[in-house]
Amino acid sequence: MTLFPEMFESLKLSILGRAIKNNIISIDAVNIRDYAFNKHNKVDDYTYGGGAGMLMQAEPVYQCHKAISEKIGTDKKIRTVYLTPQGQVLNQTLAMELAKEDELILLCGHYEGIDERVLEETVTDYISIGDYVLTGGELPAMVLIDTVSRFVEGVLNNDESAMTESFSNGLLEYPQYSRPEVWHDKAVPEILMSGHHENVEKWRFEQSLERTKERRPDLYDEFTKTHTKDKKGRWIL
Amino acid sequence: MTLFPEMFESLKLSILGRAIKNNIISIDAVNIRDYAFNKHNKVDDYTYGGGAGMLMQAEPVYQCHKAISEKIGTDKKIRTVYLTPQGQVLNQTLAMELAKEDELILLCGHYEGIDERVLEETVTDYISIGDYVLTGGELPAMVLIDTVSRFVEGVLNNDESAMTESFSNGLLEYPQYSRPEVWHDKAVPEILMSGHHENVEKWRFEQSLERTKERRPDLYDEFTKTHTKDKKGRWIL
Repeated sequence: MTLFPEMFESLKLSILGRAIKNNIISIDAVNIRDYAFNKHNKVDDYTYGGGAGMLMQAEPVYQCHKAISEKIGTDKKIRTVYLTPQGQVLNQTLAMELAKEDELILLCGHYEGIDERVLEETVTDYISIGDYVLTGGELPAMVLIDTVSRFVEGVLNNDESAMTESFSNGLLEYPQYSRPEVWHDKAVPEILMSGHHENVEKWRFEQSLERTKERRPDLYDEFTKTHTKDKKGRWIL
Repeated sequence: MTLFPEMFESLKLSILGRAIKNNIISIDAVNIRDYAFNKHNKVDDYTYGGGAGMLMQAEPVYQCHKAISEKIGTDKKIRTVYLTPQGQVLNQTLAMELAKEDELILLCGHYEGIDERVLEETVTDYISIGDYVLTGGELPAMVLIDTVSRFVEGVLNNDESAMTESFSNGLLEYPQYSRPEVWHDKAVPEILMSGHHENVEKWRFEQSLERTKERRPDLYDEFTKTHTKDKKGRWIL
């Protein structure tokens, strides 16, 4: 549900485009303005109590949500996400959970926001993609679609769905290298050329740990609190 | 710097489109593949040390970055942001700081990531938009462009640049209401119709405080730690 449905076309250009073509996922951008029942297709009005900025009114949002729900035609209430800085912050766990839903309705706000009453009546989840403010809910909705879709079976191929990505063990990813062996006088770390699988894994884990400690002390603390070491002083994963 | 330059077209459809038309900001999406000096325009290769997935190679990224820097033609090093879950997490303060730069280069990764050596040589800032994984760096770059542009003078008009938005005082925004006065048997809170500016402000602040406490206890704790109350028990802002 958006005032800028064309923005979502760009998702079809990305890796998700393949999944859409293969009917693994589908995205339907519905224009809230089509449900504005007045001469000028107006969807916004002043805010009660004053203050700069216009607010999206309840009725067009409500009618749009109703039309989508009827089109989907299921008996149960469809999980409806309002993208807002006031929501629960998106993370991998939440994305994985949302990926289990057959249908999701995403509501994108604009202007100063949306009339509280229609949110109470339609929205089941308030989700934020981070502690920053954007000009509208479209980019957050696209981010949510992308991260949730990655957890839908068949969206990524084997090469893309590497289990070694950042956060999969609570740590950031280690540095990686590709050909050539020497580039700008910088050689690939020797251990990666050794063919010794166990040593490579050990090196990569140490790099992950070090990088997380340096760049994200909050994640590092969380990791050390939730993991223990074996007798040889190695973290047990 | 991207492998999917067309994705950035959708920014022109949003509120930023107006700022682009008015020459307040400009966005130039450069295809890294144009700097792949081989027959097949290949930009990726296997990862040393093994593991699923391909890595973006150093040279095309380096040549692309060099070409952009030369085109901009400034003597000083241009701030270059790599969008990665391994980076510093984006927030309003960081966005405000980036908005002071005349030029920004954003690097979007794909596949398993980018060869570490070219990152060391070109990147000045590693930035993450949140603790989740996406199929590529394009959506994070668009999010960064949007949130940073909001702080560039002239991008938003008065109605849009409300100072009351979430995070502006460290708290989430209060609920808002627009016409009609009664919708689905729900009336706008009476105080908002009173015309009593001071009471309205008081109510809104209390709602902000309550909502933050309920939805984002981390932000609420931060607020109460960094603010004090006056003799009447009211928070001093």
